[in-house]
Amino acid sequence: MTKARVVIEGLSPQVDCGRFPARRIVGDVVVVEADVFTDGHDSVAASVLYRHESETQWHQMPMSFLGNDRWQGSFNALKLGRYLFTVEAWVDHLESWRRGLAKKVEAGQDVEIDLKQGAALALAHAGRVAAADADRLREWASALTDPVREREQRALLAQSEALHGLARRSPDPVLVRRHEPPLAIEVERERARFSSWYEMFPRSAAPHAGEHGTLADVEALLPYVASMGFDVLYLPPIHPIGETERKGPNNRVGASPEDPGSPWAIGSREGGHKAVHPRLGTLEDFRRLLASAGALGLEVALDIAFQCAPDHPYVREHPQWFLKRPDGSVQYAENPPKKYQDIYPFWFECEDWQGLWAELKSVFEFWIAQGVRIFRVDNPHTKPFAFWEWVIGEIRRAHPEVIFLAEAFTRPKVMYRLAKLGFTQSYNYFPWRNSKREIIEYFTELTSRPVCEFFRPSLWPNTPDILTEYLQFGGRPAFVTRLVLAATLGASFGIYGPAFELAECRARESGSEEYLDSEKYQLRSWNRDDPASLRDLIARLNRVRRESPALRGDASLKFHSIDNEALLAYSKVSGDDSILVIVNVDPHHAQTGWVHLDLAALGLTEDAPYQADDLLSGARFLWRGARNYVALDPAGTAAHVFRIRRRVRTERDFDYFM
Amino acid sequence: MTKARVVIEGLSPQVDCGRFPARRIVGDVVVVEADVFTDGHDSVAASVLYRHESETQWHQMPMSFLGNDRWQGSFNALKLGRYLFTVEAWVDHLESWRRGLAKKVEAGQDVEIDLKQGAALALAHAGRVAAADADRLREWASALTDPVREREQRALLAQSEALHGLARRSPDPVLVRRHEPPLAIEVERERARFSSWYEMFPRSAAPHAGEHGTLADVEALLPYVASMGFDVLYLPPIHPIGETERKGPNNRVGASPEDPGSPWAIGSREGGHKAVHPRLGTLEDFRRLLASAGALGLEVALDIAFQCAPDHPYVREHPQWFLKRPDGSVQYAENPPKKYQDIYPFWFECEDWQGLWAELKSVFEFWIAQGVRIFRVDNPHTKPFAFWEWVIGEIRRAHPEVIFLAEAFTRPKVMYRLAKLGFTQSYNYFPWRNSKREIIEYFTELTSRPVCEFFRPSLWPNTPDILTEYLQFGGRPAFVTRLVLAATLGASFGIYGPAFELAECRARESGSEEYLDSEKYQLRSWNRDDPASLRDLIARLNRVRRESPALRGDASLKFHSIDNEALLAYSKVSGDDSILVIVNVDPHHAQTGWVHLDLAALGLTEDAPYQADDLLSGARFLWRGARNYVALDPAGTAAHVFRIRRRVRTERDFDYFM
Repeated sequence: MTKARVVIEGLSPQVDCGRFPARRIVGDVVVVEADVFTDGHDSVAASVLYRHESETQWHQMPMSFLGNDRWQGSFNALKLGRYLFTVEAWVDHLESWRRGLAKKVEAGQDVEIDLKQGAALALAHAGRVAAADADRLREWASALTDPVREREQRALLAQSEALHGLARRSPDPVLVRRHEPPLAIEVERERARFSSWYEMFPRSAAPHAGEHGTLADVEALLPYVASMGFDVLYLPPIHPIGETERKGPNNRVGASPEDPGSPWAIGSREGGHKAVHPRLGTLEDFRRLLASAGALGLEVALDIAFQCAPDHPYVREHPQWFLKRPDGSVQYAENPPKKYQDIYPFWFECEDWQGLWAELKSVFEFWIAQGVRIFRVDNPHTKPFAFWEWVIGEIRRAHPEVIFLAEAFTRPKVMYRLAKLGFTQSYNYFPWRNSKREIIEYFTELTSRPVCEFFRPSLWPNTPDILTEYLQFGGRPAFVTRLVLAATLGASFGIYGPAFELAECRARESGSEEYLDSEKYQLRSWNRDDPASLRDLIARLNRVRRESPALRGDASLKFHSIDNEALLAYSKVSGDDSILVIVNVDPHHAQTGWVHLDLAALGLTEDAPYQADDLLSGARFLWRGARNYVALDPAGTAAHVFRIRRRVRTERDFDYFM
Repeated sequence: MTKARVVIEGLSPQVDCGRFPARRIVGDVVVVEADVFTDGHDSVAASVLYRHESETQWHQMPMSFLGNDRWQGSFNALKLGRYLFTVEAWVDHLESWRRGLAKKVEAGQDVEIDLKQGAALALAHAGRVAAADADRLREWASALTDPVREREQRALLAQSEALHGLARRSPDPVLVRRHEPPLAIEVERERARFSSWYEMFPRSAAPHAGEHGTLADVEALLPYVASMGFDVLYLPPIHPIGETERKGPNNRVGASPEDPGSPWAIGSREGGHKAVHPRLGTLEDFRRLLASAGALGLEVALDIAFQCAPDHPYVREHPQWFLKRPDGSVQYAENPPKKYQDIYPFWFECEDWQGLWAELKSVFEFWIAQGVRIFRVDNPHTKPFAFWEWVIGEIRRAHPEVIFLAEAFTRPKVMYRLAKLGFTQSYNYFPWRNSKREIIEYFTELTSRPVCEFFRPSLWPNTPDILTEYLQFGGRPAFVTRLVLAATLGASFGIYGPAFELAECRARESGSEEYLDSEKYQLRSWNRDDPASLRDLIARLNRVRRESPALRGDASLKFHSIDNEALLAYSKVSGDDSILVIVNVDPHHAQTGWVHLDLAALGLTEDAPYQADDLLSGARFLWRGARNYVALDPAGTAAHVFRIRRRVRTERDFDYFM
């Protein structure tokens, strides 16, 4: 039982009833909404309370009424880390009184008693505010009931906004309700939302075919990567590789001595997760690579794959971290009937699980100490959720700038859970969403609540494990289409190169998504200067992305209607920046159609012309109204990336017109 | 940090993150669902735990897998009151092992070591079960590893469902996770969901015009009400009526001495909320009315209007329960600029609010002691939410069979909140949803989650306060249409009679929804034997409702497509009972159209004929397939209420066919 009559419901943003934080980036205005209402006709008032986790005092921001009992307020997320927020609300008797008084005055009713009621309310508030404010409230109360003044003058005085503001800041505490417990917002740096990734194997970075690439070779290729406009260079594991059960080219069982093995079979006599593969170089080489990359605006992301080759020092030093089979051998990875005898998984349920978790955390800390701030986590869905929530929480508490990309190619609910518990970005089903209908359905889900509050997709048209059939059989146009989609549908995207820019499309076998002669198991030599390379298109797209605030987020994504099942139209808007993308998803045929734009979503009106500048081709179109014709041929670049310019120079812009 | 690797998410049913119970009736099977999954490839298992609030031990029911990580279980709600439920889940290593073993055996792999692993798992379980079961598990373990047996025989033994069931009931406690806190289900009697209400003013029950009706007169009319098939007889307040500021006919200010006043202006020298108006009779008359009604299958519902006329004994005995104006007078009800000087609201924020709340609770208890079990609560949205949650909770704890109907004609969120916190049923926007589009939109909202979990609409085409323009101007066909809609769209519905069955449609003034010469302010005399009365149609509809399980709930409501904006088609299904309703919502013109049925929703197939029996007209149609023609003329009964009979006698039913 309580005297507080106000109700607070439906707070947003909110993920799983507050179990997880919503995600934002530094500089975001966090918009908070809630249903706030009370019984009867009384007025209510509400505030957002918020604080950074490092603060002890709440800040307060008044909320405003949106309609249908919905209230809105906001605060600025200025610092990395976690913010807490909640809503406080109360019945605002002074406002009820003021509203009623205005109606009575308008209806010509006698308000003498009402003015006395207002004075009593003001005096009650005076007891709860600072002395100077209390004096003003008392003066006001006596003016309201001053028989010398005209009644109209007093009724007018009753509407004083300043005095009501004063009173509103000091509601009667017994009438105030606060939503408990507070909700959380996790604030990350901008790269958490907006990032362009380039993945490459250091082993194939050597300038001459047949040589094993080194970190120094990677350093030499940094200008190449930077010239395409990327800001993250992601390297598969750089650690020593196991020899026992090592796989040969094309994942063959039984490697020859010169085969380099898979970088994900981590650990040998030469070290484990905290060591650099001797053929790649030294820890010092790695630190130098980081510095050189930084100078070009590139961050280096490392791959964290928590599994061991049989030769990993952990297997010898911490046998208790691995499940034993009844014959005394260590349990290798399996997904029956498949066996991965070159990989030992950690036993997360072992007796010494706390020792194991602590050691795995120290792997992140080791690389953070070298300067790494971005990790791509291999198969996080095969390690316990509770482990990730703990380790990401611990790391981010000390280093809130660290970014984790989840390689969560798994079932939807598992993928989303990993995002909720802390992964910054995630791989997702983009590689297999190729038709117009699939793309609209999936990206509508990703950019709608609840998913958009906690999940940040990173769009990869290919990875070393994924050469989709669309890319295998669609030729160069398929690569162009998937690239444009990845770079514009997603504020974060990445490619695995040079396989991507060189349009490598040979699969190991029919029906497989594995590359033929994959770098996972052997060295490759690439002709990065191939004139057919997509590097110029990539560079142009990354420039457009950098220059367009609209493409730096996914929240504004909006699909527009277009009367052809092979043509996809969508826009992103931020402030004055409007980007409209039209893509032909059929890599085989030219397609034409009429797009029917949602003009309001683009900030346009039916009666004013506007300009559509194609940022890829340089072509400019003068359009007017919602319906416009488009034709896209895979023989050229089967996509338009338009910047919509609302103000168009027409004859009306000249002085002499009129 | 925890070893338990399983995750439980998205439990349903759930209202506002578990803040409120979901609502069911006795006999319902409560279906519980949750997302249950873990990392990696391990199997998981889950159970529903449930108990009635009066029990201390949980009951356990295994859940089964639906797909996409969703699991489902259920329990039977056998008792009135509150049930608690939650979900428990764990990684099921024995099941993972069994599944893997089957795949390995199928792939022809050596499983000798796997059989040993299974034996070890069985022995671990043996330590957690009763002696007899433990013996069986141990025997099984030794059989699995018995070198004398054929390996195929042992692999077969490993698949034993009985032994896995045994093990599954005793998971390792450190691997078990339970969703906390438990969620609640409020279980009410069937009338909470399925009820047919008839409202009448006792004051107009007298056999002769001009006489003031009595409770005895109401008793004499019970057969009339029962003949129409109603099961709830709802009476406006039967208490003494205030004299100060009493309103005259048509809500005129200044009543003459013989005017009876509004029954909602409760309280005079003759008593308040626990008294019977002397002109209606005595408490004894009331108890006799209850008994007579019960004998005819009718429950009497009382009106609870928590407000006072200035003459109410409370005003004198408990002046602290009323807000004073600065001139010392009691604050009357107002919604500026409107004033209701004949009504004093209670001051729920007063110092003695706990005394006030306790007294109001005792009003319910008084009438419960007389035998009343259904209350219609007047304007609940003008009293604090916390009060209702408290008082309904208290009453239902002692009397879980009590039903509360909220007269919550207010904004949507307020209406829903009152339902969440305990009101059994609620008035709603049905009176103003007249077009096909409005009805489909509103009833889709009402029968979808989250609303359907906590809100039970009661559909009233009219009330003493609401004579809609549709009824004012639509003539008799409008009454027929709204009646059919109310009785079939809603498992609970009601009418205010005899105004409704006699199609009273005269409003006080243009633009008003008030009845002319409303019984709220004066006596009325009604010709209940008018041959134009809708009583036979009402009786027929109520018979259909009683005989149709499909019409006893709203959950199965499904709209079907029909190519005419004035024709509405919808169905309800329960087991074998399928009702299809087609209504012409245009009271002025005959309408025809082709309905396109969702055959699957009706349990029909495209290739088998079926019979549509019109339960109103007695006509029978033999239909086949989804598309069928309908024609409905307001000159007749502008609605079909079909029972769909799936099995139709055709020539194939006869022995000689074939």
